[in-house]
Amino acid sequence: MAKIDLDTFGINEGISEMIVTTYQGWSPNAAPMGIIRKDDELLVRLFKGSTTYNNVMAEHMLVANLVYDPLLFVRTTFGNVDSSEFEVFTHDERGFAVLKEAVSWAVFECVDMKETSEALVAKLKPLHARMNKHVFRSVNRGFNLVIESCVHATRYELTNDEKYMRLIKAYSCTVNKCGGKAEKDAMKFLLNYLGEKK
Amino acid sequence: MAKIDLDTFGINEGISEMIVTTYQGWSPNAAPMGIIRKDDELLVRLFKGSTTYNNVMAEHMLVANLVYDPLLFVRTTFGNVDSSEFEVFTHDERGFAVLKEAVSWAVFECVDMKETSEALVAKLKPLHARMNKHVFRSVNRGFNLVIESCVHATRYELTNDEKYMRLIKAYSCTVNKCGGKAEKDAMKFLLNYLGEKK
Repeated sequence: MAKIDLDTFGINEGISEMIVTTYQGWSPNAAPMGIIRKDDELLVRLFKGSTTYNNVMAEHMLVANLVYDPLLFVRTTFGNVDSSEFEVFTHDERGFAVLKEAVSWAVFECVDMKETSEALVAKLKPLHARMNKHVFRSVNRGFNLVIESCVHATRYELTNDEKYMRLIKAYSCTVNKCGGKAEKDAMKFLLNYLGEKK
Repeated sequence: MAKIDLDTFGINEGISEMIVTTYQGWSPNAAPMGIIRKDDELLVRLFKGSTTYNNVMAEHMLVANLVYDPLLFVRTTFGNVDSSEFEVFTHDERGFAVLKEAVSWAVFECVDMKETSEALVAKLKPLHARMNKHVFRSVNRGFNLVIESCVHATRYELTNDEKYMRLIKAYSCTVNKCGGKAEKDAMKFLLNYLGEKK
């Protein structure tokens, strides 16, 4: 296993919200996902039927991208990302795709895969990682609530339960008060997208 | 004015939630506060009667500390911080106190101070800044919701409105699911503190 210090790559204890990219040799896929870390063990839980699930079943590999761009979180929540936004690399003769915008990324092999009726749980074994840029980031409630809104948007799409929409609308006020331009644009995109789907 | 690139020090567009330290030559004070940035102008809004307000009125100076420790956010929300956690520096013959745990900090002179009936609004002119450590941090919903809980805890203490307590309790479930040990400890401290005050 590659000696990769998880903290160095921003994969901290608890659940890290990252954008997972997968690739089967045709167009790459990106989706926000929680990377679960307990001590030095990493796990991921993938819902059956998702593109990430299908790609991982085929390739036993995924890339966790650390991303600070709120709009990219929103766009990948809805599968709205262009193939030009990926970069394809080869490591040990295996191809993988990362997001060009990632602050850092780490490639994992998926091992000990276990399927339940709804999901696949896999352990992640680090293969390769890269840091692209070092940035100091302030704590921004606007950014944080864009992420919460993405989580709720996924649940809203699955259940159509209006309680999620009420939460998103409440969060959007704080995003517009505390966020920068990127956070405001991301929230606008999210609300437009959910509005159009209705 | 010192040439300090605000982005470099993690003070981004929108409102950055930072821990502001102030000092009048006796024990220093620390309190979480929003640093408002529009383009390259920085503003702060301080409520009358707070220690930060009194110190700024006396010294026309404050330090914005970038902090990633969730427990320190919670403790400073409730004024629970020990003088040994500060470090005192002198710059151009003026003393100021910073948090030892800060990832980075910036010292500002408070200018164009305007008072309303409730608050003081001041522009911030950078004097001096330091980066202590470079860290990659994943996006963690647990951390983010500890910050939300601090904001609501302040409102709960002011108004006693139970709606804030309901929000905090809902957030605590996500903190316990998604946070690391630091986030869980911070949430426990916050809930204990609010419970004891009742």
